[in-house]
Amino acid sequence: MSVKWRDFVRSLDKEAIENLAVGAAILGTGGGGDPYIGKLTAIQALEEGYEINVVDVEEVPKDALIIPSAGMGTPTVIVEKLPRGTEIINAFKALGEYLGKEVYATMPIEAGGLNSTFPLAVGAKMGIPIVDADGMGRAFPELQMTTFHINGVTVTPMALADERDNIVILKTCDNYWAEWIARDITIRFGGTAWIALYPMTGKELRKAAIPGTLGLAERLGEAVREARERKENPIDAVLNASQGFELFKGKVVDVERRTTGGFARGVVKIEGFDEYSGNTLEVHIQNENLVAIKNGDVIASVPDLITILDLETAVPITTESVKYGQRCFVIGIPCSEMWRTEKGLEVAGPKYFGYDVEYEPIEEIMGEV
Amino acid sequence: MSVKWRDFVRSLDKEAIENLAVGAAILGTGGGGDPYIGKLTAIQALEEGYEINVVDVEEVPKDALIIPSAGMGTPTVIVEKLPRGTEIINAFKALGEYLGKEVYATMPIEAGGLNSTFPLAVGAKMGIPIVDADGMGRAFPELQMTTFHINGVTVTPMALADERDNIVILKTCDNYWAEWIARDITIRFGGTAWIALYPMTGKELRKAAIPGTLGLAERLGEAVREARERKENPIDAVLNASQGFELFKGKVVDVERRTTGGFARGVVKIEGFDEYSGNTLEVHIQNENLVAIKNGDVIASVPDLITILDLETAVPITTESVKYGQRCFVIGIPCSEMWRTEKGLEVAGPKYFGYDVEYEPIEEIMGEV
Repeated sequence: MSVKWRDFVRSLDKEAIENLAVGAAILGTGGGGDPYIGKLTAIQALEEGYEINVVDVEEVPKDALIIPSAGMGTPTVIVEKLPRGTEIINAFKALGEYLGKEVYATMPIEAGGLNSTFPLAVGAKMGIPIVDADGMGRAFPELQMTTFHINGVTVTPMALADERDNIVILKTCDNYWAEWIARDITIRFGGTAWIALYPMTGKELRKAAIPGTLGLAERLGEAVREARERKENPIDAVLNASQGFELFKGKVVDVERRTTGGFARGVVKIEGFDEYSGNTLEVHIQNENLVAIKNGDVIASVPDLITILDLETAVPITTESVKYGQRCFVIGIPCSEMWRTEKGLEVAGPKYFGYDVEYEPIEEIMGEV
Repeated sequence: MSVKWRDFVRSLDKEAIENLAVGAAILGTGGGGDPYIGKLTAIQALEEGYEINVVDVEEVPKDALIIPSAGMGTPTVIVEKLPRGTEIINAFKALGEYLGKEVYATMPIEAGGLNSTFPLAVGAKMGIPIVDADGMGRAFPELQMTTFHINGVTVTPMALADERDNIVILKTCDNYWAEWIARDITIRFGGTAWIALYPMTGKELRKAAIPGTLGLAERLGEAVREARERKENPIDAVLNASQGFELFKGKVVDVERRTTGGFARGVVKIEGFDEYSGNTLEVHIQNENLVAIKNGDVIASVPDLITILDLETAVPITTESVKYGQRCFVIGIPCSEMWRTEKGLEVAGPKYFGYDVEYEPIEEIMGEV
């Protein structure tokens, strides 16, 4: 095993993973999968004696090969069809063998319960570090919605695996074709696929990734936990740690949900109470929370982050677990500046998702209110 | 280039390809694609100076690697979206590189207009021979419907390519999964994919392939051409050369056709004339002609071959070109004995296609009539 990265990694323990899973789910804006399932695989790897080592972007050699790893598909399905754990390793190995080069590290493509923590188990079992970075700084539903894509890194060669040991290797003419074909394979696989994709060099990593998001998730989760231990309001702790905004407080009165085209889509309706009494918030979802509409006005939209938190615990509520009667807080968090460029908005702005909404940074909307 | 096969190959000229295309379309039972498009690619290869060399099964070394090549998808689409010719080469090369071994030869997986002749162009351009054999002795709509499958050869590793240079490599847990996933990719590709699949050794080839079907197709086509040149009835020539049976003669009065799930499906209704006056024949299709029902009675069914021929020219009419008003002959030809085994009927008998029909060999049905 290579030891060249051992000097500058930090190892994650169980508590760090618990914090990271909560924080990643906050950044996951309802998507990226259930944080509970995500952290289980990482903690299990620790308990089996594997090490989870995180490395900073600047420490990765410029010519090193990094292969991100993730789960793909409908979060609603992942909750009911738990992975064996070998799927993602199969995909990762298949892509490494296809490329025929030594893989230096893995990393998440997005921040989210499952997809922040699954790469931890991959790194652990492959004996390689996990880069503290991701390609979204939040969660998004489609493969090309990454800062990797915006910066010219290609999704393919990419590998997909399922629990039957089916393996698919894709090499597509562009990143939209990768999404288009991979989404369909995911559906054929039964709703979820385990993937290795966006192979890139350390040089590309520096330009294309959002650095430090694993650390940020860990600090967010830590803030929530400490606030609860000190009997303070955990929501305030989240807003402080994330530089976020309070959007709404209320009770979920309706969830319209359908699983179509490999995505969980729907609308969550929340009726306000306390200072929000008499007001209604609608959150539109496609795996993630995409647009928040208060009394008919858009008060936050992609690419900014919209997260629904449990009112008492500040635990984020994912789009597949949100349900009638939940009392919740809705918060908004500014996205990475990379998403606010023309190219960024073209790839993941509200119009791409079919909403006739002109994107306005959440800080500006909140300033106006 | 390897020369070890040069001693025992026979080279095909333009006339041989013309004959082969007609004969293969007769064996193709309405499927396998348009014979005109198929032969064009082979003849074009000749005109570009490539050689088309055919080798017999017994001459292939037992440890040699053979990779069959084919087009996959809806024939209706292939007619309108002609291939560039590079797609199938891309797929073939991708699979060869994935396997990392020298490829000795290619071959057809089925008999049919396109799929008998496309491998000729692949062999020509790759500088390797084409084995005189196939995996069906006819055409069938699904990948696992081969004598390769019946004899334990796996469809995957398999490569699929399209005209945009998208490439997919599959490695599935079984042959049904290969069909299931590849079919979907074919649909995403726009209705057709160009494939390399069923990699096998010379030893497996001997056990699993139906030998001599390229030669048979050539002789069938030759018989038709010679009969026409001698002003004899070409239908009789086909029946003699194929040991087939006359099933019906009439005019197409209705074609119900739909393209669903990546297949061309439908029913062709034919009203008899001359000695068949007052009778009706229905031919049920799914890319190929599957079941022939005369006045409500099944008179031929898969895996036996059912082919519709133009009444005057004996040119086979494919399922995508059959139309109202065509005057035609319908013939039946006994299938390979491999298909009449329990396993063979399980894979490609009428029940697999959803027909509540007990298979009876066509010779027996014809003996009864």
